[in-house]
Amino acid sequence: MKIRTAVLTAAKRGHTHLPLQTMIDREGYPQTALALQLRELIDAGIERVGIVVAPGQAPIFREAVSGLGARIDFIEQPEARGFGDAVRRARDFVNGEAFLLAVGDHLFISTNPDKNCARQLLERAAASETAMAAVQATHESEIGLYGTIGGVLEDRERGLFRVRHMVEKPTPTQAEVELLVPGLRSGHYLCFFGLHVLPARIFDLLDAADDGNGPVGLTPALERLAQEETFHAFEIEGRRYNLEARHGLLLAQLALALNSRHREEILEHLVRLLAKA
Amino acid sequence: MKIRTAVLTAAKRGHTHLPLQTMIDREGYPQTALALQLRELIDAGIERVGIVVAPGQAPIFREAVSGLGARIDFIEQPEARGFGDAVRRARDFVNGEAFLLAVGDHLFISTNPDKNCARQLLERAAASETAMAAVQATHESEIGLYGTIGGVLEDRERGLFRVRHMVEKPTPTQAEVELLVPGLRSGHYLCFFGLHVLPARIFDLLDAADDGNGPVGLTPALERLAQEETFHAFEIEGRRYNLEARHGLLLAQLALALNSRHREEILEHLVRLLAKA
Repeated sequence: MKIRTAVLTAAKRGHTHLPLQTMIDREGYPQTALALQLRELIDAGIERVGIVVAPGQAPIFREAVSGLGARIDFIEQPEARGFGDAVRRARDFVNGEAFLLAVGDHLFISTNPDKNCARQLLERAAASETAMAAVQATHESEIGLYGTIGGVLEDRERGLFRVRHMVEKPTPTQAEVELLVPGLRSGHYLCFFGLHVLPARIFDLLDAADDGNGPVGLTPALERLAQEETFHAFEIEGRRYNLEARHGLLLAQLALALNSRHREEILEHLVRLLAKA
Repeated sequence: MKIRTAVLTAAKRGHTHLPLQTMIDREGYPQTALALQLRELIDAGIERVGIVVAPGQAPIFREAVSGLGARIDFIEQPEARGFGDAVRRARDFVNGEAFLLAVGDHLFISTNPDKNCARQLLERAAASETAMAAVQATHESEIGLYGTIGGVLEDRERGLFRVRHMVEKPTPTQAEVELLVPGLRSGHYLCFFGLHVLPARIFDLLDAADDGNGPVGLTPALERLAQEETFHAFEIEGRRYNLEARHGLLLAQLALALNSRHREEILEHLVRLLAKA
Protein backbone atom coordinates (compact mmCIF):
# COMPACT_ATOMS: atom_id res chain seq x y z
CA MET A 1 0.00 0.00 0.00
CA LYS A 2 1.89 2.99 -1.28
CA ILE A 3 0.12 6.25 -0.35
CA ARG A 4 0.66 9.01 -2.89
CA THR A 5 -2.23 11.31 -2.07
CA ALA A 6 -2.71 13.61 0.91
CA VAL A 7 -5.52 15.85 2.05
CA LEU A 8 -4.60 18.89 4.15
CA THR A 9 -7.45 20.71 5.88
CA ALA A 10 -7.00 24.46 6.17
CA ALA A 11 -10.59 25.62 6.04
CA LYS A 12 -11.20 26.69 9.61
CA ARG A 13 -12.86 30.10 9.61
CA GLY A 14 -11.24 32.77 11.75
CA HIS A 15 -7.83 31.16 11.30
CA THR A 16 -7.31 31.84 7.62
CA HIS A 17 -4.21 33.91 8.40
CA LEU A 18 -2.44 30.96 10.07
CA PRO A 19 -1.23 29.11 6.97
CA LEU A 20 0.39 32.31 5.72
CA GLN A 21 2.36 33.06 8.88
CA THR A 22 6.08 33.23 8.29
CA MET A 23 8.12 30.68 10.16
CA ILE A 24 11.85 30.03 10.07
CA ASP A 25 12.60 26.49 8.93
CA ARG A 26 15.32 24.17 10.25
CA GLU A 27 17.83 25.60 7.81
CA GLY A 28 17.08 29.14 8.93
CA TYR A 29 15.02 30.26 5.94
CA PRO A 30 11.63 31.93 6.13
CA GLN A 31 8.70 29.81 4.94
CA THR A 32 4.99 30.08 5.37
CA ALA A 33 3.49 27.62 7.85
CA LEU A 34 1.59 26.13 4.90
CA ALA A 35 4.81 25.55 2.94
CA LEU A 36 6.34 23.82 5.97
CA GLN A 37 3.30 21.57 6.26
CA LEU A 38 3.43 20.69 2.57
CA ARG A 39 7.17 20.06 2.75
CA GLU A 40 6.48 17.50 5.49
CA LEU A 41 4.10 15.64 3.17
CA ILE A 42 6.24 15.87 0.05
CA ASP A 43 9.39 14.76 1.89
CA ALA A 44 7.41 11.70 2.99
CA GLY A 45 6.77 10.71 -0.63
CA ILE A 46 3.37 12.31 -1.22
CA GLU A 47 2.88 13.31 -4.85
CA ARG A 48 -0.51 15.05 -4.82
CA VAL A 49 -2.01 17.22 -2.11
CA GLY A 50 -5.58 18.47 -1.94
CA ILE A 51 -5.86 21.47 0.38
CA VAL A 52 -9.36 22.09 1.69
CA VAL A 53 -9.89 25.82 2.16
CA ALA A 54 -12.60 28.31 3.02
CA PRO A 55 -14.25 30.00 0.02
CA GLY A 56 -12.02 32.62 -1.59
CA GLN A 57 -8.80 31.48 0.11
CA ALA A 58 -7.37 29.46 -2.77
CA PRO A 59 -5.72 32.37 -4.65
CA ILE A 60 -4.07 33.68 -1.48
CA PHE A 61 -2.78 30.29 -0.43
CA ARG A 62 -1.69 29.34 -3.94
CA GLU A 63 0.94 32.05 -3.92
CA ALA A 64 2.39 30.63 -0.69
CA VAL A 65 2.90 27.13 -2.07
CA SER A 66 4.38 27.69 -5.51
CA GLY A 67 7.47 25.76 -6.47
CA LEU A 68 7.12 22.94 -3.98
CA GLY A 69 7.26 20.21 -6.58
CA ALA A 70 4.01 18.36 -5.94
CA ARG A 71 0.66 18.63 -7.60
CA ILE A 72 -1.40 20.82 -5.34
CA ASP A 73 -5.14 21.25 -5.76
CA PHE A 74 -7.40 23.52 -3.77
CA ILE A 75 -10.81 22.30 -2.72
CA GLU A 76 -13.37 24.69 -1.27
CA GLN A 77 -15.51 23.85 1.71
CA PRO A 78 -18.60 25.99 0.98
CA GLU A 79 -19.91 26.18 4.55
CA ALA A 80 -18.17 25.87 7.92
CA ARG A 81 -19.75 22.50 8.78
CA GLY A 82 -16.96 20.93 10.79
CA PHE A 83 -13.75 19.02 10.29
CA GLY A 84 -15.44 15.89 8.96
CA ASP A 85 -17.27 17.94 6.36
CA ALA A 86 -13.98 19.55 5.29
CA VAL A 87 -12.44 16.12 4.80
CA ARG A 88 -15.48 14.97 2.84
CA ARG A 89 -14.94 17.70 0.26
CA ALA A 90 -11.82 15.85 -0.91
CA ARG A 91 -13.71 12.71 -2.04
CA ASP A 92 -13.34 13.40 -5.76
CA PHE A 93 -9.74 14.49 -5.37
CA VAL A 94 -8.83 11.29 -3.49
CA ASN A 95 -10.58 9.20 -6.13
CA GLY A 96 -11.03 5.91 -4.31
CA GLU A 97 -7.56 5.26 -2.94
CA ALA A 98 -6.24 5.21 0.62
CA PHE A 99 -4.83 8.62 1.53
CA LEU A 100 -2.97 10.58 4.18
CA LEU A 101 -5.02 13.15 6.07
CA ALA A 102 -3.10 16.00 7.72
CA VAL A 103 -4.64 18.59 10.02
CA GLY A 104 -3.66 22.01 8.71
CA ASP A 105 -3.49 23.84 12.03
CA HIS A 106 -0.72 21.63 13.39
CA LEU A 107 2.99 21.66 12.85
CA PHE A 108 4.75 18.32 13.24
CA ILE A 109 8.29 18.12 14.52
CA SER A 110 9.97 14.76 14.33
CA THR A 111 12.44 13.63 16.95
CA ASN A 112 13.54 10.78 14.70
CA PRO A 113 16.67 12.06 12.97
CA ASP A 114 15.98 10.10 9.77
CA LYS A 115 12.25 10.32 9.22
CA ASN A 116 9.75 13.10 9.52
CA CYS A 117 6.41 12.41 11.18
CA ALA A 118 4.44 11.80 7.98
CA ARG A 119 7.04 9.33 6.73
CA GLN A 120 7.00 7.41 10.01
CA LEU A 121 3.25 6.99 9.75
CA LEU A 122 3.22 6.12 6.03
CA GLU A 123 5.85 3.45 6.48
CA ARG A 124 4.08 1.87 9.42
CA ALA A 125 0.73 1.93 7.62
CA ALA A 126 2.27 0.43 4.50
CA ALA A 127 3.71 -2.43 6.57
CA SER A 128 0.42 -3.24 8.32
CA GLU A 129 -1.91 -2.40 5.42
CA THR A 130 -4.46 -0.99 7.85
CA ALA A 131 -6.07 2.36 8.58
CA MET A 132 -3.87 4.12 11.11
CA ALA A 133 -3.95 7.26 13.21
CA ALA A 134 -0.75 8.78 14.48
CA VAL A 135 -1.12 9.42 18.22
CA GLN A 136 0.85 11.08 20.96
CA ALA A 137 0.75 10.24 24.66
CA THR A 138 -0.79 13.38 26.11
CA HIS A 139 -1.27 14.49 29.70
CA GLU A 140 -4.87 14.49 30.93
CA SER A 141 -4.71 18.28 31.37
CA GLU A 142 -4.58 18.63 27.57
CA ILE A 143 -6.82 15.84 26.31
CA GLY A 144 -9.79 18.23 26.17
CA LEU A 145 -8.18 19.67 23.04
CA TYR A 146 -7.87 16.48 21.03
CA GLY A 147 -9.54 13.36 19.78
CA THR A 148 -8.53 10.62 22.21
CA ILE A 149 -8.51 6.87 21.69
CA GLY A 150 -9.05 3.84 23.84
CA GLY A 151 -7.50 0.54 22.83
CA VAL A 152 -4.94 -2.12 23.53
CA LEU A 153 -1.24 -2.36 22.94
CA GLU A 154 -0.52 -4.66 20.00
CA ASP A 155 3.20 -4.26 19.47
CA ARG A 156 5.21 -2.29 22.00
CA GLU A 157 8.40 -2.21 19.94
CA ARG A 158 6.62 -0.74 16.92
CA GLY A 159 4.46 1.59 19.03
CA LEU A 160 1.27 0.02 17.61
CA PHE A 161 -2.10 -0.02 19.34
CA ARG A 162 -5.38 -1.52 18.22
CA VAL A 163 -8.06 1.18 18.45
CA ARG A 164 -11.32 0.11 20.12
CA HIS A 165 -13.01 3.37 20.86
CA MET A 166 -12.51 7.11 20.50
CA VAL A 167 -13.91 10.29 21.97
CA GLU A 168 -13.52 13.83 20.65
CA LYS A 169 -12.15 16.17 23.36
CA PRO A 170 -13.03 14.05 26.40
CA THR A 171 -13.04 15.24 30.00
CA PRO A 172 -10.46 13.60 32.27
CA THR A 173 -13.26 11.74 34.06
CA GLN A 174 -14.67 10.39 30.82
CA ALA A 175 -11.17 9.45 29.69
CA GLU A 176 -10.48 7.56 32.91
CA VAL A 177 -13.62 5.47 32.45
CA GLU A 178 -13.48 4.86 28.71
CA LEU A 179 -10.03 5.53 27.34
CA LEU A 180 -7.40 4.06 29.67
CA VAL A 181 -4.71 2.37 27.63
CA PRO A 182 -2.55 -0.08 29.58
CA GLY A 183 1.15 0.61 29.40
CA LEU A 184 1.10 4.43 29.28
CA ARG A 185 2.51 6.68 31.96
CA SER A 186 0.00 7.51 34.67
CA GLY A 187 -2.36 10.34 33.72
CA HIS A 188 -1.58 10.02 30.02
CA TYR A 189 -3.85 9.13 27.14
CA LEU A 190 -3.34 8.54 23.43
CA CYS A 191 -4.50 11.61 21.52
CA PHE A 192 -4.62 12.17 17.81
CA PHE A 193 -1.46 13.68 16.41
CA GLY A 194 -3.14 15.19 13.35
CA LEU A 195 -2.02 12.63 10.77
CA HIS A 196 -4.16 9.69 9.65
CA VAL A 197 -3.92 7.06 6.94
CA LEU A 198 -7.48 6.37 5.87
CA PRO A 199 -9.28 4.25 3.27
CA ALA A 200 -11.60 5.98 0.80
CA ARG A 201 -14.41 4.19 2.65
CA ILE A 202 -14.19 7.02 5.19
CA PHE A 203 -16.12 9.27 2.80
CA ASP A 204 -19.16 7.01 2.95
CA LEU A 205 -18.92 6.95 6.73
CA LEU A 206 -18.71 10.74 6.83
CA ASP A 207 -21.80 10.99 4.64
CA ALA A 208 -23.57 8.56 6.96
CA ALA A 209 -22.56 10.65 10.00
CA ASP A 210 -24.18 13.77 8.54
CA ASP A 211 -27.68 14.23 9.92
CA GLY A 212 -28.19 17.29 7.73
CA ASN A 213 -27.72 19.90 10.39
CA GLY A 214 -24.89 20.81 12.73
CA PRO A 215 -21.22 20.15 12.16
CA VAL A 216 -19.92 16.85 10.84
CA GLY A 217 -17.09 15.46 12.95
CA LEU A 218 -14.39 13.07 11.82
CA THR A 219 -14.34 11.10 15.07
CA PRO A 220 -17.78 9.41 14.73
CA ALA A 221 -16.79 8.24 11.25
CA LEU A 222 -13.47 6.91 12.56
CA GLU A 223 -15.27 5.15 15.41
CA ARG A 224 -17.44 3.43 12.85
CA LEU A 225 -14.41 2.53 10.76
CA ALA A 226 -12.77 0.93 13.81
CA GLN A 227 -15.85 -1.27 14.20
CA GLU A 228 -15.72 -2.37 10.57
CA GLU A 229 -12.03 -3.01 10.08
CA THR A 230 -8.68 -3.03 11.86
CA PHE A 231 -7.78 0.50 12.87
CA HIS A 232 -4.37 1.07 14.39
CA ALA A 233 -2.93 3.89 16.43
CA PHE A 234 0.78 4.50 16.07
CA GLU A 235 2.84 6.44 18.57
CA ILE A 236 4.96 8.84 16.54
CA GLU A 237 8.50 9.84 17.45
CA GLY A 238 7.85 13.55 17.43
CA ARG A 239 5.61 16.26 18.76
CA ARG A 240 2.68 18.11 17.27
CA TYR A 241 2.25 21.81 17.88
CA ASN A 242 -1.20 23.28 17.68
CA LEU A 243 -0.77 26.59 15.84
CA GLU A 244 -4.24 27.75 16.83
CA ALA A 245 -3.52 27.80 20.55
CA ARG A 246 -2.90 31.22 22.06
CA HIS A 247 0.87 30.98 21.95
CA GLY A 248 0.84 28.07 19.51
CA LEU A 249 2.86 29.77 16.79
CA LEU A 250 5.45 30.89 19.33
CA LEU A 251 5.88 27.41 20.77
CA ALA A 252 5.93 25.75 17.35
CA GLN A 253 8.56 28.19 16.14
CA LEU A 254 10.59 27.68 19.28
CA ALA A 255 10.44 23.91 18.93
CA LEU A 256 11.48 24.21 15.30
CA ALA A 257 14.39 26.47 16.18
CA LEU A 258 15.52 24.20 19.01
CA ASN A 259 15.51 21.30 16.55
CA SER A 260 17.42 23.25 13.92
CA ARG A 261 21.10 23.86 13.44
CA HIS A 262 20.62 27.17 15.25
CA ARG A 263 19.83 25.38 18.50
CA GLU A 264 22.80 26.79 20.41
CA GLU A 265 22.21 30.33 19.17
CA ILE A 266 18.57 30.09 20.24
CA LEU A 267 19.46 28.70 23.65
CA GLU A 268 21.87 31.58 24.13
CA HIS A 269 19.15 34.10 23.20
CA LEU A 270 16.71 32.31 25.50
CA VAL A 271 19.00 32.54 28.48
CA ARG A 272 19.68 36.22 27.82
CA LEU A 273 15.99 36.88 27.37
CA LEU A 274 15.06 35.14 30.58
CA ALA A 275 17.72 37.11 32.39
CA LYS A 276 16.26 40.39 31.12
CA ALA A 277 12.56 39.85 30.68
CA MET B 1 7.32 70.71 23.10
CA LYS B 2 4.39 68.35 22.77
CA ILE B 3 4.93 65.83 19.97
CA ARG B 4 1.71 64.73 18.29
CA THR B 5 3.04 63.37 15.03
CA ALA B 6 4.94 60.17 14.34
CA VAL B 7 6.51 58.65 11.25
CA LEU B 8 6.78 54.88 11.07
CA THR B 9 8.97 53.44 8.33
CA ALA B 10 7.79 50.14 6.89
CA ALA B 11 9.06 50.42 3.34
CA LYS B 12 11.89 47.92 3.33
CA ARG B 13 11.59 45.71 0.28
CA GLY B 14 11.68 41.97 0.88
CA HIS B 15 10.20 42.45 4.34
CA THR B 16 6.74 43.60 3.36
CA HIS B 17 5.22 40.55 5.06
CA LEU B 18 6.64 41.52 8.46
CA PRO B 19 4.10 44.18 9.49
CA LEU B 20 1.28 41.73 8.84
CA GLN B 21 2.65 38.91 10.96
CA THR B 22 0.30 37.91 13.74
CA MET B 23 1.64 38.36 17.24
CA ILE B 24 -0.03 37.73 20.57
CA ASP B 25 -0.17 40.92 22.64
CA ARG B 26 0.32 41.25 26.38
CA GLU B 27 -3.35 40.54 27.01
CA GLY B 28 -3.22 37.37 24.94
CA TYR B 29 -5.02 38.63 21.84
CA PRO B 30 -3.75 38.29 18.29
CA GLN B 31 -2.61 41.52 16.64
CA THR B 32 -0.52 42.26 13.59
CA ALA B 33 3.01 43.45 14.33
CA LEU B 34 2.02 46.74 12.70
CA ALA B 35 -0.94 47.20 15.04
CA LEU B 36 1.33 46.55 18.04
CA GLN B 37 3.77 49.18 16.78
CA LEU B 38 0.99 51.70 16.26
CA ARG B 39 -0.47 50.94 19.67
CA GLU B 40 2.91 51.83 21.20
CA LEU B 41 2.80 55.24 19.52
CA ILE B 42 -0.85 55.96 20.24
CA ASP B 43 -0.52 54.94 23.89
CA ALA B 44 2.33 57.46 24.15
CA GLY B 45 0.03 60.31 23.06
CA ILE B 46 0.68 60.38 19.32
CA GLU B 47 -2.35 61.58 17.36
CA ARG B 48 -1.26 61.23 13.75
CA VAL B 49 0.99 58.58 12.23
CA GLY B 50 2.45 58.60 8.73
CA ILE B 51 3.49 55.11 7.67
CA VAL B 52 6.05 55.04 4.88
CA VAL B 53 5.49 51.98 2.70
CA ALA B 54 6.71 50.41 -0.51
CA PRO B 55 4.51 51.10 -3.56
CA GLY B 56 1.27 49.14 -3.52
CA GLN B 57 1.45 48.14 0.16
CA ALA B 58 -0.94 50.78 1.50
CA PRO B 59 -4.19 48.89 0.86
CA ILE B 60 -2.84 45.69 2.44
CA PHE B 61 -1.53 47.49 5.52
CA ARG B 62 -4.60 49.69 5.88
CA GLU B 63 -6.73 46.67 6.65
CA ALA B 64 -4.36 45.72 9.48
CA VAL B 65 -4.61 49.07 11.24
CA SER B 66 -8.28 49.88 11.20
CA GLY B 67 -9.94 50.97 14.41
CA LEU B 68 -6.83 52.07 16.26
CA GLY B 69 -8.10 55.54 17.02
CA ALA B 70 -5.42 57.74 15.47
CA ARG B 71 -5.24 59.40 12.11
CA ILE B 72 -3.10 57.14 9.98
CA ASP B 73 -1.77 58.17 6.60
CA PHE B 74 0.18 56.04 4.19
CA ILE B 75 3.10 57.56 2.31
CA GLU B 76 4.75 55.72 -0.55
CA GLN B 77 8.49 55.57 -1.03
CA PRO B 78 8.69 55.19 -4.82
CA GLU B 79 12.16 53.65 -4.97
CA ALA B 80 14.15 51.63 -2.43
CA ARG B 81 16.70 54.37 -1.79
CA GLY B 82 17.53 53.75 1.85
CA PHE B 83 16.17 54.51 5.29
CA GLY B 84 16.93 58.24 5.10
CA ASP B 85 15.04 58.49 1.85
CA ALA B 86 12.05 56.70 3.42
CA VAL B 87 12.01 59.22 6.26
CA ARG B 88 12.28 62.10 3.80
CA ARG B 89 9.02 61.05 2.11
CA ALA B 90 7.17 62.14 5.26
CA ARG B 91 8.17 65.83 4.96
CA ASP B 92 4.76 67.08 3.85
CA PHE B 93 2.97 64.87 6.36
CA VAL B 94 5.10 66.18 9.25
CA ASN B 95 4.47 69.75 8.11
CA GLY B 96 7.24 71.62 9.91
CA GLU B 97 6.90 70.33 13.47
CA ALA B 98 9.15 68.14 15.58
CA PHE B 99 8.10 64.50 15.28
CA LEU B 100 8.69 61.00 16.58
CA LEU B 101 10.40 58.64 14.17
CA ALA B 102 9.88 54.91 14.77
CA VAL B 103 11.66 52.15 12.88
CA GLY B 104 9.02 49.76 11.57
CA ASP B 105 11.04 46.57 11.74
CA HIS B 106 11.49 46.75 15.52
CA LEU B 107 9.25 45.84 18.37
CA PHE B 108 9.79 47.76 21.60
CA ILE B 109 9.17 46.16 24.97
CA SER B 110 9.29 48.45 27.97
CA THR B 111 10.60 47.24 31.30
CA ASN B 112 9.16 50.33 32.98
CA PRO B 113 5.82 49.21 34.39
CA ASP B 114 4.21 52.64 33.89
CA LYS B 115 5.49 53.90 30.56
CA ASN B 116 6.02 52.27 27.24
CA CYS B 117 9.22 53.04 25.33
CA ALA B 118 7.80 55.78 23.10
CA ARG B 119 6.32 57.58 26.10
CA GLN B 120 9.61 57.46 27.99
CA LEU B 121 11.36 59.11 25.04
CA LEU B 122 8.65 61.69 24.39
CA GLU B 123 8.59 62.81 28.02
CA ARG B 124 12.36 63.10 28.20
CA ALA B 125 12.53 65.03 24.93
CA ALA B 126 9.72 67.34 26.03
CA ALA B 127 11.62 68.11 29.23
CA SER B 128 14.90 68.90 27.48
CA GLU B 129 13.41 70.43 24.29
CA THR B 130 16.15 68.86 22.22
CA ALA B 131 16.46 66.33 19.44
CA MET B 132 16.86 62.95 21.06
CA ALA B 133 17.59 59.38 20.03
CA ALA B 134 16.58 56.51 22.26
CA VAL B 135 19.57 54.22 22.72
CA GLN B 136 20.30 50.86 24.26
CA ALA B 137 23.63 49.68 25.68
CA THR B 138 24.54 46.90 23.27
CA HIS B 139 27.30 44.33 23.35
CA GLU B 140 30.05 44.84 20.76
CA SER B 141 29.12 41.53 19.13
CA GLU B 142 25.86 43.13 17.96
CA ILE B 143 26.81 46.71 17.15
CA GLY B 144 27.38 45.80 13.50
CA LEU B 145 23.58 45.73 13.19
CA TYR B 146 22.84 49.23 14.46
CA GLY B 147 23.67 52.90 14.31
CA THR B 148 26.02 53.53 17.21
CA ILE B 149 26.79 56.80 18.94
CA GLY B 150 29.81 58.31 20.65
CA GLY B 151 29.29 60.98 23.27
CA VAL B 152 29.50 61.95 26.89
CA LEU B 153 27.30 61.30 29.87
CA GLU B 154 25.32 64.39 30.75
CA ASP B 155 22.94 63.20 33.45
CA ARG B 156 23.36 59.70 34.81
CA GLU B 157 20.14 59.71 36.78
CA ARG B 158 18.08 60.63 33.74
CA GLY B 159 20.09 58.35 31.43
CA LEU B 160 20.99 61.31 29.19
CA PHE B 161 24.04 61.51 26.95
CA ARG B 162 25.21 64.30 24.70
CA VAL B 163 25.82 62.87 21.22
CA ARG B 164 29.08 63.87 19.58
CA HIS B 165 29.44 61.41 16.80
CA MET B 166 27.71 58.46 15.23
CA VAL B 167 28.56 55.58 12.91
CA GLU B 168 26.15 53.32 11.09
CA LYS B 169 26.90 49.62 11.79
CA PRO B 170 30.48 50.04 13.02
CA THR B 171 33.02 47.26 13.45
CA PRO B 172 34.14 46.59 17.04
CA THR B 173 37.56 48.05 16.19
CA GLN B 174 36.07 51.25 14.79
CA ALA B 175 33.76 51.49 17.79
CA GLU B 176 36.64 51.11 20.22
CA VAL B 177 38.47 54.02 18.58
CA GLU B 178 35.57 56.39 17.92
CA LEU B 179 32.56 55.44 20.00
CA LEU B 180 33.65 54.61 23.54
CA VAL B 181 31.21 56.17 26.01
CA PRO B 182 32.56 56.48 29.57
CA GLY B 183 30.38 54.86 32.19
CA LEU B 184 29.07 51.88 30.19
CA ARG B 185 29.85 48.27 30.96
CA SER B 186 32.99 47.01 29.28
CA GLY B 187 32.44 45.94 25.67
CA HIS B 188 29.16 47.86 25.42
CA TYR B 189 28.21 50.75 23.19
CA LEU B 190 25.15 52.95 22.82
CA CYS B 191 23.18 51.83 19.80
CA PHE B 192 20.03 53.31 18.35
CA PHE B 193 16.88 51.83 19.77
CA GLY B 194 14.74 52.69 16.76
CA LEU B 195 12.93 55.71 18.23
CA HIS B 196 14.01 59.31 17.62
CA VAL B 197 12.55 62.73 18.36
CA LEU B 198 13.64 64.94 15.49
CA PRO B 199 13.08 68.51 14.36
CA ALA B 200 11.65 69.12 10.87
CA ARG B 201 15.10 70.49 10.01
CA ILE B 202 16.13 66.85 9.49
CA PHE B 203 14.39 66.87 6.12
CA ASP B 204 16.75 69.57 4.80
CA LEU B 205 19.71 67.62 6.12
CA LEU B 206 18.45 64.46 4.43
CA ASP B 207 18.10 66.34 1.14
CA ALA B 208 21.62 67.67 1.56
CA ALA B 209 22.92 64.14 2.25
CA ASP B 210 21.52 62.89 -1.07
CA ASP B 211 24.18 62.93 -3.78
CA GLY B 212 21.68 61.76 -6.37
CA ASN B 213 22.74 58.15 -6.49
CA GLY B 214 22.97 55.34 -3.97
CA PRO B 215 20.96 55.01 -0.81
CA VAL B 216 20.31 57.93 1.51
CA GLY B 217 21.11 57.09 5.12
CA LEU B 218 19.65 58.71 8.20
CA THR B 219 22.89 58.60 10.17
CA PRO B 220 24.82 61.20 8.11
CA ALA B 221 21.93 63.63 8.52
CA LEU B 222 21.79 62.97 12.26
CA GLU B 223 25.54 63.48 12.49
CA ARG B 224 25.10 66.86 10.84
CA LEU B 225 22.22 67.69 13.17
CA ALA B 226 24.42 66.90 16.19
CA GLN B 227 26.95 69.44 14.91
CA GLU B 228 24.31 72.12 14.52
CA GLU B 229 22.31 71.73 17.71
CA THR B 230 22.13 69.78 20.95
CA PHE B 231 21.37 66.16 20.21
CA HIS B 232 20.76 63.88 23.14
CA ALA B 233 20.81 60.13 23.49
CA PHE B 234 18.51 58.67 26.12
CA GLU B 235 18.90 55.18 27.54
CA ILE B 236 15.46 53.63 27.49
CA GLU B 237 14.14 51.24 30.12
CA GLY B 238 13.25 48.50 27.72
CA ARG B 239 14.53 46.35 24.90
CA ARG B 240 14.13 46.53 21.16
CA TYR B 241 13.63 43.38 19.16
CA ASN B 242 14.67 43.41 15.53
CA LEU B 243 11.91 41.57 13.69
CA GLU B 244 14.03 41.23 10.58
CA ALA B 245 16.70 39.11 12.21
CA ARG B 246 16.53 35.39 11.44
CA HIS B 247 14.69 34.44 14.60
CA GLY B 248 13.64 38.01 15.34
CA LEU B 249 9.90 37.38 15.33
CA LEU B 250 10.35 34.39 17.60
CA LEU B 251 12.41 36.31 20.13
CA ALA B 252 10.14 39.36 20.02
CA GLN B 253 7.09 37.18 20.59
CA LEU B 254 8.82 35.35 23.39
CA ALA B 255 9.82 38.61 25.08
CA LEU B 256 6.27 39.88 24.72
CA ALA B 257 4.84 36.69 26.20
CA LEU B 258 7.31 36.72 29.08
CA ASN B 259 6.26 40.30 29.81
CA SER B 260 2.57 39.46 29.63
CA ARG B 261 0.18 38.07 32.18
CA HIS B 262 0.82 34.66 30.65
CA ARG B 263 4.41 34.66 31.84
CA GLU B 264 4.08 31.64 34.09
CA GLU B 265 2.21 29.62 31.49
CA ILE B 266 4.94 30.42 28.96
CA LEU B 267 7.73 29.54 31.37
CA GLU B 268 6.03 26.21 32.02
CA HIS B 269 5.78 25.52 28.27
CA LEU B 270 9.41 26.55 27.86
CA VAL B 271 10.65 24.13 30.46
CA ARG B 272 8.61 21.31 28.97
CA LEU B 273 9.82 22.18 25.50
CA LEU B 274 13.45 22.25 26.56
CA ALA B 275 13.01 18.91 28.26
CA LYS B 276 11.65 17.40 25.04
CA ALA B 277 13.24 19.19 22.15
